[in-house]
Amino acid sequence: MTYTLRSALVPVEDGYATVDVQIEVDRIAAIGPDLPLVGTAIEAENKLLLPGFVNGHTHSPQFWQRGLIPQLPLELWLADVFDTSPTEAEKTYLGALGTAIHTLLSGGTCIMDHLYLIAGQELESVAAAARAYKEVGIRAFIAPLIQDLPFVAGYPEGVKTLPHQPYPQSTEDVLAIMEAIVAQFHAPDDGIHIAVGPTGFHRCSDALFEGLRDLSDRRNLCRHTHLLETRSQKILAQERFGGSAVRHLQQLGFLDHRTSLAHSIWLDDADIDILAETKSTVVHNALSNLRLGSGIAPVLKYLQAGVNVAFGCDGFASNDGQDMLEAIKIGSILHNVTDPDYQHWITPHKAVEMAAIGGFTGVNLADQVGSLTVGKQADLVLYDLKNLSLLPRTDPIKLLVLGRPHAAVESVWVRGRQVISGGTLQTVDTAQFSQTIFNDGTGYPTPHYKTIHQVEAHYRRVMGLSE
Amino acid sequence: MTYTLRSALVPVEDGYATVDVQIEVDRIAAIGPDLPLVGTAIEAENKLLLPGFVNGHTHSPQFWQRGLIPQLPLELWLADVFDTSPTEAEKTYLGALGTAIHTLLSGGTCIMDHLYLIAGQELESVAAAARAYKEVGIRAFIAPLIQDLPFVAGYPEGVKTLPHQPYPQSTEDVLAIMEAIVAQFHAPDDGIHIAVGPTGFHRCSDALFEGLRDLSDRRNLCRHTHLLETRSQKILAQERFGGSAVRHLQQLGFLDHRTSLAHSIWLDDADIDILAETKSTVVHNALSNLRLGSGIAPVLKYLQAGVNVAFGCDGFASNDGQDMLEAIKIGSILHNVTDPDYQHWITPHKAVEMAAIGGFTGVNLADQVGSLTVGKQADLVLYDLKNLSLLPRTDPIKLLVLGRPHAAVESVWVRGRQVISGGTLQTVDTAQFSQTIFNDGTGYPTPHYKTIHQVEAHYRRVMGLSE
Repeated sequence: MTYTLRSALVPVEDGYATVDVQIEVDRIAAIGPDLPLVGTAIEAENKLLLPGFVNGHTHSPQFWQRGLIPQLPLELWLADVFDTSPTEAEKTYLGALGTAIHTLLSGGTCIMDHLYLIAGQELESVAAAARAYKEVGIRAFIAPLIQDLPFVAGYPEGVKTLPHQPYPQSTEDVLAIMEAIVAQFHAPDDGIHIAVGPTGFHRCSDALFEGLRDLSDRRNLCRHTHLLETRSQKILAQERFGGSAVRHLQQLGFLDHRTSLAHSIWLDDADIDILAETKSTVVHNALSNLRLGSGIAPVLKYLQAGVNVAFGCDGFASNDGQDMLEAIKIGSILHNVTDPDYQHWITPHKAVEMAAIGGFTGVNLADQVGSLTVGKQADLVLYDLKNLSLLPRTDPIKLLVLGRPHAAVESVWVRGRQVISGGTLQTVDTAQFSQTIFNDGTGYPTPHYKTIHQVEAHYRRVMGLSE
Repeated sequence: MTYTLRSALVPVEDGYATVDVQIEVDRIAAIGPDLPLVGTAIEAENKLLLPGFVNGHTHSPQFWQRGLIPQLPLELWLADVFDTSPTEAEKTYLGALGTAIHTLLSGGTCIMDHLYLIAGQELESVAAAARAYKEVGIRAFIAPLIQDLPFVAGYPEGVKTLPHQPYPQSTEDVLAIMEAIVAQFHAPDDGIHIAVGPTGFHRCSDALFEGLRDLSDRRNLCRHTHLLETRSQKILAQERFGGSAVRHLQQLGFLDHRTSLAHSIWLDDADIDILAETKSTVVHNALSNLRLGSGIAPVLKYLQAGVNVAFGCDGFASNDGQDMLEAIKIGSILHNVTDPDYQHWITPHKAVEMAAIGGFTGVNLADQVGSLTVGKQADLVLYDLKNLSLLPRTDPIKLLVLGRPHAAVESVWVRGRQVISGGTLQTVDTAQFSQTIFNDGTGYPTPHYKTIHQVEAHYRRVMGLSE
């Protein structure tokens, strides 16, 4: 399809300008005032045009756990999450749809799904998510979340003195599954990318990291992992490596310009230098980090050190929304309390750049998408500046980032395909989707958790909490 | 009007129950299963019923400054705010409407408007806000923001060595204006309350506090003021009182059960004890505190000390949204990073109580409104549990508080009057309102600030920021 967006407001060096934008097939063909009409005319007057954002870290099956898990720190929260994870591929499909819908409706055109796999249905899990993403029309990176150490390996000494089995699959088994997933589903030309996604050093062996590094090198795949989300993980790194987890990942060759690292909260200055040196990306999930009490990532330090920072929502179980604009707002203003010098604070204009080009840098696509640039792929979002939540007419990007926009996304294109028009998703019937999800439930039952009871007392003791 | 809400979901001790609720005139007349139908039937099946929230601190004229002010700390931000404040009563009216509309659409039924007065049009300012609140149908406390010291008095030594005039009105003049405002506009039976609202110790004399205390005592008015929002104000308190501003306010007799204190960030343990002892309420405005880099209020300590804590949005210039659900979400999860013991964290159920009964306690109305109790005034909100943003069917209050609800408010009653039905405001045409606000602007001009240039270098020096 070909489109001409007429009279869109776009940010420029010293404010805003009104331009026309031509989209041809999947690309931005021209940007400028008073362009000739090609293809379908889209009236964009009083609308703000921005590149699409990247939801740089989420776990789509947690869609089913939104509003479910009590207020707990990661280590205990995770026990509850594992006890209540869906085990049917159909739920993986619907969860991916739900995650993508929320992302698109809040300005995201690309998602990094650190996807939980159903045991024994690993390929079916990826198939379900990929089907959802193709259907809804979002650009997707699927990083199957894999590990080769058991659940309790993620805890420091003293917590993991629990009875436990080895992980049921060997490192070779896990790598073989990943090979099969890449062979079957990696299809960048269709907007579906497979990335390697070890859950984190805390539940993955060095051999697994190395195997995934090699797979990434052979197929030029992105790399995605959790990094030092909690103080407990920092303690664990000290126990296991005698020092820095970041240094260890660097030594394993896992950190490069294709690597994005979710959370990255408990890093010191030397670690930050390693991220800068290796051109790794930090994905900042402020809302999840607050909900789980994980801490405040040193994002201003990252920016000052030249580390690329993107934003993510994280999964619905730890940030029960999946709203990119909320993730950007809180992920930027949160840091104002960490540094009294306001000249270091993240401005709204900087924040949207981090969410767009920063996000696409994190998935190694910055040369192809992520800015309003002729020749780049058209991942574009129009925001309705007549929407009550974006009034009065002050500064559109400040309104968008610092306000609380409601239903402000008017149109979205992903790879040149229009997936939202007039605020309504064109690819999936959201009313029918809501009804499907509603019908799945049977009221508001109290879930039954069990794993947490095996861990909690140990956790409290090791973390120095009163017993 | 009389209503029977049928089959509403309400929180109970150990989960949720489905009940009918009868509203007669302005009161909750009955709550229970299978009540007889009286008056208009409202189908509330698959809807969550909660008491309305209190937006415990805002400045409605800042509606016009949403998305306007750059990323700055309070002391410099305020210079920009003062330079761009509206000076027409019609804008005060529209600003109050806009603030109330956003509050109602996010579950608030009551507002504490620390109202900027236009110089020379003080009574007209209050009249404009009161007219808006009556029209839209929100319960309102209007606390005219007054002071009797000049702008620069709010800065510590070193910043205030600037040329400045005394405040143009004497303490007596200011008190006389307040007397006139109370005489003309205080009308609790119409849902419009006047409160005394000295801006804060930093720009008000002791004589002004004492005069307002006496006025509050004579007319049983609520008291509302800013308290220790920034580190700069703590420095100023040390300079002016040789110690604690909280102790000083207590000695002035300003703190009692009718007193609500916005922000309250830079307090120590002795200060917290004073708040508990005097039964003062803290109004927590997390989003504003982050945007301005003011700090994180010690809210968990307040709760542990037995201090009542409510939530506010603060004005649109410092939190460019005005969404109570966002204020509650961030205002509760933010504190998880301040205390590693999750047993101290604010649960979503606790958060809605703080927003409802906590808010009404702060305006001394807890015996009349703020909970689902027979005999109390009907400030009620129904949330649509089939809304995509409140699915799947896990825990409704967790979904509401921890998620990012969009257009989830289905119906609202204030003092028994239905002001929202089917998600649409019944009292004011929001589409027409949006058009009015849109028409007021003339594009996206860059504002001209001047005061900040007189202050910034001094501020940076005093606060120890690099020059």
